[in-house]
Amino acid sequence: MIIVLKIGSQEDEIQQVVAAVKKFQYEPKLIRGVERTIVACVGDERNHHTLESLIVLPQVESVTPVQKKYKLVSREYQAHDTLIDVAGLQIGGKAFHVVAGPCSVESAEQAKETAQAVKSAGATLFRGGAFKPRTSPYDFQGLGVPALEMLREAREKTGLPIVTEVMSPQDVELVARYADVLQIGARNAQNVPLLAAVAASGKPILLKRGVSGLVDEWLLAAEYICVHGNSKVILCERGIRTFEHACRNTLDLSAVAVAKKETHLPVFVDPSHAAGRADMIIPLARAAVAVGADGLLVEVHPDPAMALSDGGQQLKPAQFQQLMDELQPIVAAMGRQFAGA
Amino acid sequence: MIIVLKIGSQEDEIQQVVAAVKKFQYEPKLIRGVERTIVACVGDERNHHTLESLIVLPQVESVTPVQKKYKLVSREYQAHDTLIDVAGLQIGGKAFHVVAGPCSVESAEQAKETAQAVKSAGATLFRGGAFKPRTSPYDFQGLGVPALEMLREAREKTGLPIVTEVMSPQDVELVARYADVLQIGARNAQNVPLLAAVAASGKPILLKRGVSGLVDEWLLAAEYICVHGNSKVILCERGIRTFEHACRNTLDLSAVAVAKKETHLPVFVDPSHAAGRADMIIPLARAAVAVGADGLLVEVHPDPAMALSDGGQQLKPAQFQQLMDELQPIVAAMGRQFAGA
Amino acid sequence: MIIVLKIGSQEDEIQQVVAAVKKFQYEPKLIRGVERTIVACVGDERNHHTLESLIVLPQVESVTPVQKKYKLVSREYQAHDTLIDVAGLQIGGKAFHVVAGPCSVESAEQAKETAQAVKSAGATLFRGGAFKPRTSPYDFQGLGVPALEMLREAREKTGLPIVTEVMSPQDVELVARYADVLQIGARNAQNVPLLAAVAASGKPILLKRGVSGLVDEWLLAAEYICVHGNSKVILCERGIRTFEHACRNTLDLSAVAVAKKETHLPVFVDPSHAAGRADMIIPLARAAVAVGADGLLVEVHPDPAMALSDGGQQLKPAQFQQLMDELQPIVAAMGRQFAGA
Amino acid sequence: MIIVLKIGSQEDEIQQVVAAVKKFQYEPKLIRGVERTIVACVGDERNHHTLESLIVLPQVESVTPVQKKYKLVSREYQAHDTLIDVAGLQIGGKAFHVVAGPCSVESAEQAKETAQAVKSAGATLFRGGAFKPRTSPYDFQGLGVPALEMLREAREKTGLPIVTEVMSPQDVELVARYADVLQIGARNAQNVPLLAAVAASGKPILLKRGVSGLVDEWLLAAEYICVHGNSKVILCERGIRTFEHACRNTLDLSAVAVAKKETHLPVFVDPSHAAGRADMIIPLARAAVAVGADGLLVEVHPDPAMALSDGGQQLKPAQFQQLMDELQPIVAAMGRQFAGA
Repeated sequence: MIIVLKIGSQEDEIQQVVAAVKKFQYEPKLIRGVERTIVACVGDERNHHTLESLIVLPQVESVTPVQKKYKLVSREYQAHDTLIDVAGLQIGGKAFHVVAGPCSVESAEQAKETAQAVKSAGATLFRGGAFKPRTSPYDFQGLGVPALEMLREAREKTGLPIVTEVMSPQDVELVARYADVLQIGARNAQNVPLLAAVAASGKPILLKRGVSGLVDEWLLAAEYICVHGNSKVILCERGIRTFEHACRNTLDLSAVAVAKKETHLPVFVDPSHAAGRADMIIPLARAAVAVGADGLLVEVHPDPAMALSDGGQQLKPAQFQQLMDELQPIVAAMGRQFAGA
Repeated sequence: MIIVLKIGSQEDEIQQVVAAVKKFQYEPKLIRGVERTIVACVGDERNHHTLESLIVLPQVESVTPVQKKYKLVSREYQAHDTLIDVAGLQIGGKAFHVVAGPCSVESAEQAKETAQAVKSAGATLFRGGAFKPRTSPYDFQGLGVPALEMLREAREKTGLPIVTEVMSPQDVELVARYADVLQIGARNAQNVPLLAAVAASGKPILLKRGVSGLVDEWLLAAEYICVHGNSKVILCERGIRTFEHACRNTLDLSAVAVAKKETHLPVFVDPSHAAGRADMIIPLARAAVAVGADGLLVEVHPDPAMALSDGGQQLKPAQFQQLMDELQPIVAAMGRQFAGA
Repeated sequence: MIIVLKIGSQEDEIQQVVAAVKKFQYEPKLIRGVERTIVACVGDERNHHTLESLIVLPQVESVTPVQKKYKLVSREYQAHDTLIDVAGLQIGGKAFHVVAGPCSVESAEQAKETAQAVKSAGATLFRGGAFKPRTSPYDFQGLGVPALEMLREAREKTGLPIVTEVMSPQDVELVARYADVLQIGARNAQNVPLLAAVAASGKPILLKRGVSGLVDEWLLAAEYICVHGNSKVILCERGIRTFEHACRNTLDLSAVAVAKKETHLPVFVDPSHAAGRADMIIPLARAAVAVGADGLLVEVHPDPAMALSDGGQQLKPAQFQQLMDELQPIVAAMGRQFAGA
Repeated sequence: MIIVLKIGSQEDEIQQVVAAVKKFQYEPKLIRGVERTIVACVGDERNHHTLESLIVLPQVESVTPVQKKYKLVSREYQAHDTLIDVAGLQIGGKAFHVVAGPCSVESAEQAKETAQAVKSAGATLFRGGAFKPRTSPYDFQGLGVPALEMLREAREKTGLPIVTEVMSPQDVELVARYADVLQIGARNAQNVPLLAAVAASGKPILLKRGVSGLVDEWLLAAEYICVHGNSKVILCERGIRTFEHACRNTLDLSAVAVAKKETHLPVFVDPSHAAGRADMIIPLARAAVAVGADGLLVEVHPDPAMALSDGGQQLKPAQFQQLMDELQPIVAAMGRQFAGA
């Protein structure tokens, strides 16, 4: 921590800060400048109590942390990329994965038909919502347990492992019986009890960034899962909320590049939720591959105009095939290959 | 819903849209303009399936809802202000309420001392965190159940009803045994299972706006609680995340004015979390009163520099007294009076 | 400047940074922590070359400025409030000023009628647009010089000094012949040649904050004007662009409180542009008074529904009278009085 | 325009709206729904007066434009891509262009050395700042006319056409004598007099998006230039201001995809200003190529640590070579080739 004192602080005021720093078991080092005095506080900021509260002292101008708050997810802690095994697939390595499927599971037929279609086009995991966190109580809330059964059938038919969202700590055990990967949605990106509960399941976790989550907050959410003993975390960027409304959210590919540098965890991109409109998914998916993402999450529906949720951002199977065709040369240009090839 | 078709749409394309609209049981009305055709779709958008998915049709330029999605919380549904009884206090009427207390309950003494101090200064409810949703797993997470016991002691000593946060559906029953008002924090503003669980408790709910929550989303979160049979919802604005970092968040008093116009629910303001710095709380609290808020939520700690969480934004008891002194003439200018006077 | 080095930096890498710091004529002070080394750089950051470029050195983790960049506008430079004389009125003291008038000057009659009306209600300055910066080239661009003549007539009739916007350095001399206060609009908040040109006019300047301007950038724009020898700057908050669209912009009253603390310049608030809707102007204006603003800028039009620009946010004269009536007790509660009373 | 009336509007209130719509020479079409009446207003919204002011009528709930405001820049106006000739180079076709050079021109040697280096690596245009719009008056403001002379020398030596910024209408004629492309910076994205002045020069214009500019505002700024008779506009995305600060701005590649769909103008990307940090430029540049941009603007400096401005985001010549090497396969995967190859 770096504590900058106000211009004109008196010696006794300086010593008061020094004493407070010692009380919190940091070692204070004084730097006396022309106008100001600075107190550099030596000590591990993750183990010691934060000094940020000292900002309330009238002689203190600012308190700035020096360390990052996350540890287990950082490249300093583990330099090499984490590989996550999902039903025999390796996520986080050279192979590029595409997770595809409908926003909501609407029927056994819809699930199986979509799973078959995305598998043919090269997807390696199947996604579908059973429990849907919706903005309005009047919107379709998902079919719940029957949808989980439909996902199981789709897996039996196609062999594709299942990614599905869990919204409540009480449901984790249930959903984990069906899912190969548990998804934490953007609305639950800082739901601490839920992060602890999914960690305890031992399953791989696909962790969406919050709709206004800082990269640091996203990595700290992953740190929560790791601290609870589960390091099988796949990060997923899905667009952030900004002033711009040409698309529903603003896809933040800088965050992907920063996350790839800062952590050893795989990073996926969800262009469907970022764009909120089907016509932008292909160019954004190409960009996601090129920025260095390890995989994509794409919504596909047999008949988007009739979908029970988020129809506007779902691709038809033929459009999904086009997506995969356009991605192929970019994946190759990045020195990777489709896992499903 | 208003569906705008693209320039040059052919008659069969127009009829395709008309047919889709009828299929969803809206009545389509065609308006043929110079360049474009518009399909106005008559029907209750809350009961019928959404037409927004029709945006995927190639001839559709835009689909715009006409109705608001919320109903029970709206002034159209109930014109007069909702009054909420909390242990004999009336919230939402002429009386202006100040809820005060520490960010975290740290000890029985800290809780009692602070409760006594804020009561003397005119606060009518006591707040304190037992379960703390923190950004980092290495930050103080709250004392949990012992903190609930300390809050109970503080209530017994001072008579002030208790407001405290609940973070998980599983904890609702427990926390409801101690609390007079259950708080939903900003990170849980769209935690649907939690909204349902607190609704079922029958307790008054203090519902914080999400850190990037639209006013519409905030009101729809309240609608979730009302739909589950509990209309005792106090809305609370606590600052939104923007590009500006002079304060931790940007207090959005326009949202308070809009909420007061759109809904019949009481609206509180939390200047402590909005500012994230103690020196801005008094002016922002004055502004909150003047914009028309029904109450305030203010963090007070006997020794903020030593606080275990968010020390930088907590007022000392003497500063809280100053706050109440400065608010008094503004409260009077608004034709109201302090509930604790 | 505080330079934090990466974990594991070698002695020669540390000395390379020390040498670079000396080259830029700062005095480096080394703090060796458990994991990291920090170089505190002593020297006036405003006179010396910035060290921020040193971030490109591979051993550097972060470079953080310690000083604020503005100087002449700061409370450290001048502790007491600046008073600005506008045609005999004092701005920045106890008196509270309301500047009112139409978005655009549309005719001599409209200008005179509105000026008369706002004067009767207690406004002390008259505003009206002659040169209008519009988002679209197809929108009304203002009447130009004839509008300036109409403003002059309105001043002759009512005695109210004139505030009007200037958009181009070439027009400054012209506009300054008519205006008592030159307004810099939000779109020109960082138009450096224009800031220099208005400074040279010697006129008082009303400086709007940029639509996404940081408080620091706003104060630095004022600093540009002061550096060019003109310290008669009135700051004006007018809403910032955020994700929220219930109002056109988000009025940021925290920025007003921060600006009042950081600078000695008067700070006004423009609730009309912040809200973009007439029904929110009165509550936001009350809040602006209560937060501590020194004045308001309010749009008033005899017939807003027929206005040539921004009709949706203009008050009718009767609504303006209501605004003044509602403000009066808040102004009094703040220990101030209307300048026009 | 679609005007939605409030629930319960009476017939005379409806007819008042109808009359106002006719007064503005639109043709009103009434749609009477279950709860509400809607007035669809037929007519060209670009030629007629806006109806948006009708929102102030008490019976009006919302007024929504149906048409886009831009015309000349739209694909509806011109379906095929615009090709812009810059000193014999074609911009906007299959060839991919990289514009490179230092943030500020600091000396004749620096300019020539950098121009030579970027040309060798494959850049086809040279950029360098002579007039610098800086946030602080104490920052380096550019060398002005001498820098223009240095740019001319660099062009003479390398043959690379010059891109440089102009900040003031008065300087347009001067800068146009040296530059092949005039750049409008992000701070001037809505500087209407400057847009008119550069249009009149007849030169190709590189138009940066404003730091908080909506895609619509960016296209309308281009429309201003086109309306003034100059359609040689290259759009340039350079990052927007959001809550996220891991990078200085958030690169918005969705905006590039939307702009490519909506307009026929070439779209470039500036990853240097978006990232504000050198280590993110290569991945973001790859993503920009893959999303479909027509060119890049990249800052290169012989010794970034010693740069007079924005050193932290400038690449060394060797890093620029690496950038070009990494881009090459992505450019090829997109079916394009480097213009400089």
